[in-house]
Amino acid sequence: MRQGKGRLLIVGLGPGACEWVTPEATQALAEANDLVGYAPYLARLPERPGQTRHASDNREELARASQALSLAASGRKVAVVSGGDPGVFAMAAAVFEALEAGEPAWRGLEVKVIPGITAMQAAAARLGAPLGHDFCAISLSDNLKSWTVIEKRLAAAADADFVIALYNPASKSRSQGIHDAFACLRARKPPATPVMFARAVGRPDEELTITSLAEADPGNADMATLVIIGSSATRVVVRPGSMRGFVYTPRGEGARP
Amino acid sequence: MRQGKGRLLIVGLGPGACEWVTPEATQALAEANDLVGYAPYLARLPERPGQTRHASDNREELARASQALSLAASGRKVAVVSGGDPGVFAMAAAVFEALEAGEPAWRGLEVKVIPGITAMQAAAARLGAPLGHDFCAISLSDNLKSWTVIEKRLAAAADADFVIALYNPASKSRSQGIHDAFACLRARKPPATPVMFARAVGRPDEELTITSLAEADPGNADMATLVIIGSSATRVVVRPGSMRGFVYTPRGEGARP
Repeated sequence: MRQGKGRLLIVGLGPGACEWVTPEATQALAEANDLVGYAPYLARLPERPGQTRHASDNREELARASQALSLAASGRKVAVVSGGDPGVFAMAAAVFEALEAGEPAWRGLEVKVIPGITAMQAAAARLGAPLGHDFCAISLSDNLKSWTVIEKRLAAAADADFVIALYNPASKSRSQGIHDAFACLRARKPPATPVMFARAVGRPDEELTITSLAEADPGNADMATLVIIGSSATRVVVRPGSMRGFVYTPRGEGARP
Repeated sequence: MRQGKGRLLIVGLGPGACEWVTPEATQALAEANDLVGYAPYLARLPERPGQTRHASDNREELARASQALSLAASGRKVAVVSGGDPGVFAMAAAVFEALEAGEPAWRGLEVKVIPGITAMQAAAARLGAPLGHDFCAISLSDNLKSWTVIEKRLAAAADADFVIALYNPASKSRSQGIHDAFACLRARKPPATPVMFARAVGRPDEELTITSLAEADPGNADMATLVIIGSSATRVVVRPGSMRGFVYTPRGEGARP
C-alpha cells in the first residue's frame, strides 16, 4: 500500500497573545493531522476533530523532534508547535538535529519552518525600540554549552557595544548564571546603561521593568523573562506623570539628540 | 473645540508575504485614519474609504516620523507602516528619535509598536534554523554610523563565534562595505563556514543561495538581500537529488552529531 505524502511544519505561535499568531501559522495548525509539542503550548490551541495531540515535557526536545519526523515519514501531516519563533532558541534546531542524526529517509521529507514573533521582539515593542540598532541574542542556558562560551560572548557583546537580549536567563535549577552575567556586564559597561526585564509579554501577568545596570536586580529574572541590556546609545525618554518611559536605541551614533 | 484622542501605531508588515502579517497589524491598519510610510509599503495595502495616505521617500525617515507624530497630536489615529519588524533596523527607532527631539506634548501621546516578522527570521525559516543558537544582527549601512564601529562589531561577532545576520548589506550608492565585511570575516573564520544569501524572501522573486565563506561572492548582495554567516557549529544537511540542503545551528556545542 502506497502511503500519502507526509510533511512536517515547525510552527511558531509567538509569545502568548493570539493577535501575534500569523495567518501562515493558523493555517498550518488547521491542516495538521498531528500536533506535537510541549504541553502548555498545545493547551493554547483549540481542539479539532480528527486531530491527534502528542504532548511532551519541556526537556524532551530531541525525542519530540524524532517522534514528529517519524510521524511525517509515515505519511502524516505533522505540526511541531513551538513558542515564539521556532528558529530562535526554540524547536527548529532540535528538529534538524534529530533529522541529521536519524533515518536517512527523513532527509527527503518536506520540512518547513513557520516563523513567529520571538520574545525579544515582543518585549522591545512594549518598551519602545531598544533593538533599534545592532544587537545580539544570547541564551544563558548552559545545559548544552559551557559557561565559558557564554561569558566570552557576553564580554564580546559588551566590548563591541551591542544591545544584548538574554534568553533563558534563569530557571528553578539554574539561578546563578544571570548573576554571573550581570557581574561580567557591570565590569564592562557604564552603570547608567538601561536594563529592561520583560516578563510574560503578551500574557495576562505581563510585567515590564526599566532600570539601569547599576540598579538592576538580576534575581528578578525567571524562566518567563527576557532581559535587554542597552548599548551606550540606548536612551530612556521620560514621559509625563506616571507614564512608563520609552526606551530606544537610535539608528546610528550620529542620531543622538 | 476639544479634539479626539490621537494615537500613533508603528506597524510591521513583515518581509513581503501577506501570510506573515499578524492579526494585530491587520487590525491596526484597518482602524487608522492616516497611513504614513515609504511608498512601496503603502502600495502593499488595500485602499480604504476615509483613510488618508502620506507616502514618502525611503531616506526621509525622521521627517516622516515627525509628520506622523504631528498628525497624532492633532487627534488622528495614525499608522506608520514599516517593512519587517519596525523595531529591527526599521521605523520605530526613527519615531522615538523624532519624539524625543520634537514637541514636548508628543511625549504624552499613545505610541505603540506592533511587531512583525523581520527579514532574518523569514530567511532563517526558508533555510532551516541557522539562527538556532546565539546570534547577532548588524546593519552595514554607514549612513549614520562610522565604518570603524561596524568593523569592530563584525570582528567581535566573528571572534566570539556568533551566527551573524547582516542587514542593509549594499545599495546602489554603497557597494564597498559588504566586500570589506567579507574580508574582515575571512581573516577570522574558517573558509568552510556556511554563508547564505536570502534575497526578496516572501516575494515572487525570492532567491536563496547556500555557499561557504571561501566561495561566497559578496557582490551577490543588494538592498533586498539578508546575509547570514554561520558560527563554527552551523551545519548544512545534504538532501537527496536536487533538494536544497537544510542549514541549522545546533542548540549547543555538545549537540553536534
